[in-house]
Amino acid sequence: MAPLHFPEQKVMTYCVGMCVDDGLVFLSDTRTNAGVDHVSAARKMAVFEQPGERVLVLLAAGNLALTQAVTHLLAAPADPSKPTLYNAANMAEAARIVGDAVREVHKRDALSLAEFSVDFNCSFILGGQIGTQAPRLFMIYAAGNFVESTRVSPYFQIGESKYGKPIIDRVITPTTPLDEVSKCALISMDSTLRSNLSVGLPLDLLVYEKDSLRVTRFASLDNDSEYFQMIHRTWGERLRQIFGEIPNPSWTDSADVPRRPREQASTVPRLVIGDLPCPEAPAQTLAQTDRGATQQ
Amino acid sequence: MAPLHFPEQKVMTYCVGMCVDDGLVFLSDTRTNAGVDHVSAARKMAVFEQPGERVLVLLAAGNLALTQAVTHLLAAPADPSKPTLYNAANMAEAARIVGDAVREVHKRDALSLAEFSVDFNCSFILGGQIGTQAPRLFMIYAAGNFVESTRVSPYFQIGESKYGKPIIDRVITPTTPLDEVSKCALISMDSTLRSNLSVGLPLDLLVYEKDSLRVTRFASLDNDSEYFQMIHRTWGERLRQIFGEIPNPSWTDSADVPRRPREQASTVPRLVIGDLPCPEAPAQTLAQTDRGATQQ
Repeated sequence: MAPLHFPEQKVMTYCVGMCVDDGLVFLSDTRTNAGVDHVSAARKMAVFEQPGERVLVLLAAGNLALTQAVTHLLAAPADPSKPTLYNAANMAEAARIVGDAVREVHKRDALSLAEFSVDFNCSFILGGQIGTQAPRLFMIYAAGNFVESTRVSPYFQIGESKYGKPIIDRVITPTTPLDEVSKCALISMDSTLRSNLSVGLPLDLLVYEKDSLRVTRFASLDNDSEYFQMIHRTWGERLRQIFGEIPNPSWTDSADVPRRPREQASTVPRLVIGDLPCPEAPAQTLAQTDRGATQQ
Repeated sequence: MAPLHFPEQKVMTYCVGMCVDDGLVFLSDTRTNAGVDHVSAARKMAVFEQPGERVLVLLAAGNLALTQAVTHLLAAPADPSKPTLYNAANMAEAARIVGDAVREVHKRDALSLAEFSVDFNCSFILGGQIGTQAPRLFMIYAAGNFVESTRVSPYFQIGESKYGKPIIDRVITPTTPLDEVSKCALISMDSTLRSNLSVGLPLDLLVYEKDSLRVTRFASLDNDSEYFQMIHRTWGERLRQIFGEIPNPSWTDSADVPRRPREQASTVPRLVIGDLPCPEAPAQTLAQTDRGATQQ
C-alpha cells in the first residue's frame, strides 16, 4: 500500500440538522482543508426544491471529492429511468437514493483511494418535506445505510459534532419553536468554531417552515452578520457571567464529612514504591453542607 | 490478522489537568467499558506523594490493561537502579520516566494486541511539584513522547475531550484562582457526562495548592455530592435561562438587506436536475439592523 503522496481536501466540517414540530433547521460551515497550510471554503449544503411540491436539503461531511461526487450523481443521475430526489415518492425513498449514490461512488472510488491510504470518509444529513407528508430528517452513512431522527433525539450532527452537542442536548425538544432551534444551532456552531480550527465561516443557515414547500428563510452568515456576531459576543459574556455566579467549592476537614457508603472510594489514590513509608497525611475534602455548597 | 474475539476493557474516560499560577487541578471520571453491556468502574488517577518533598499526579486514558500496566511499572520498577517518580530530579525527568514505562509496555504488549486487532491506545497527564521548583504539567502520548503545557494553553485533556473543551477555552487563564479552576473542571465534566455514556461517576478531584508539597484537597464525587449536584442542576438551569434571554433571529426580505462583498455566497445553494425549471423564489434572510439583532 503506497503512502499518502498528496493531501486530500477534507471537509472537516460541522453540520447540524434538526427536525421539530414547526419544521426543519439546517446549518453548515464552509471550511475545507487539506492540512493546515491548505485551507479553503466550499459549501456543504445543497437544496433540491420544487416550489409548492417539495423541499429537500442535503448536508455533507467528509472527503470533499467524495461528497461532491455524490452531489454530482444526485444532480445528474446516470440512469434517468431511476427515481431522483425530484420525484421520490417520500423522504425514506429520497434517503435511499442518496444512499445508492454513496454506494455508486464507493464502487468507483474506494479502491483507488485505498491505494493512497485515503479512507472512504463521508456522511450526510438529508431533511425535507414532500407534498402533504410530514417533514422528516435522516442521516446517511458512508456505507449507504441510514437512520431517521426520532422525537427523543430530534437532530443529527455530522463532522466535528462533539463541541456543540451539550447545548443541543440541553435545550432542543420537538416543541421548541423554529427561531429558538435556529439560535441553538448557531450557539452550537459558535462553540465549535471557538474550539476547532477545522470549522470556519461563512455559515449557511436554512430554516424550513413546515408546509411552506419552498425555501422561505436562508442566510449566509459571515463576519459581517450582526446577528451571529451578537450571539458570539453575548453567549461568551453570559457564560462567563453565570460561571462567576455559581458558588466556588468550599473545602473542609475530611473528619467533618459524614461517612459514605463507598468509604474506600473516597481516599486519595496514593501509590507507594517499594518500602517507602506510606504517607497518611489527611487531606481536606469538599464540604457537604447545604450552606457550603449553595451560598458563598 | 485475527478478528477481535473478545471485548477489551477500555477507559473511554474524560480526564483534565490544569496548571495555573496558584497550583494544579486534576479531575478524572471512573467509567470503564468493554462494550455497552460491560460497564464498570476503575480509578484513573494515581498519586505519588512524599509529604514536604514532592507531589506527582498521574491521570490515564485508553485501554485499561495498558494504563494499569504502566502504573504497575511505575510503582514497581523492573530496574531499581533507574530513577523513579519518587527520586526524579525534576518534572521533565518524571515525564520521561512515564514515557519510558509506556515504551516498555509497548515492547511487551503491542504485538500480541495487534494479533487481536486491538490498538495500542493509551495517554497520560502528569502534573506536580518537586521541592522548590515550579509546578508543571505534561501530556504523555502512546509513543512515550510528551509535551508540556504553556501559559497560552494551561491545560490538557485526555479521553472524551471535545464536549468539555468550549467552557475551558472560555474561562481558564493562568491567573484564574484554584477554586474557579476546580469549578470549571467540574462544569466541563458535567457537559461531558451529559452527552457521552462512556464517561461516568464517581469523579476524583485533586486540587494541589502550590508549595504545599502534600495532598491537601481531594474529593471523590458521587451522586451524593451536594456540590457536584448543585453544579449539575444550576449550570443546566442557567444555560437554559441565558439561552432564552438571547434574542431570537428576525427575518426580513432579502431586498431590504444591503448587498455584501461576497454576494454570490449568500444565495440559496439550489441544485437543478436536467431541464427542470430553475426555481427563483425569493427567500427571507436574517435582518441586519442593530435593532433586529439585539432587541426583541
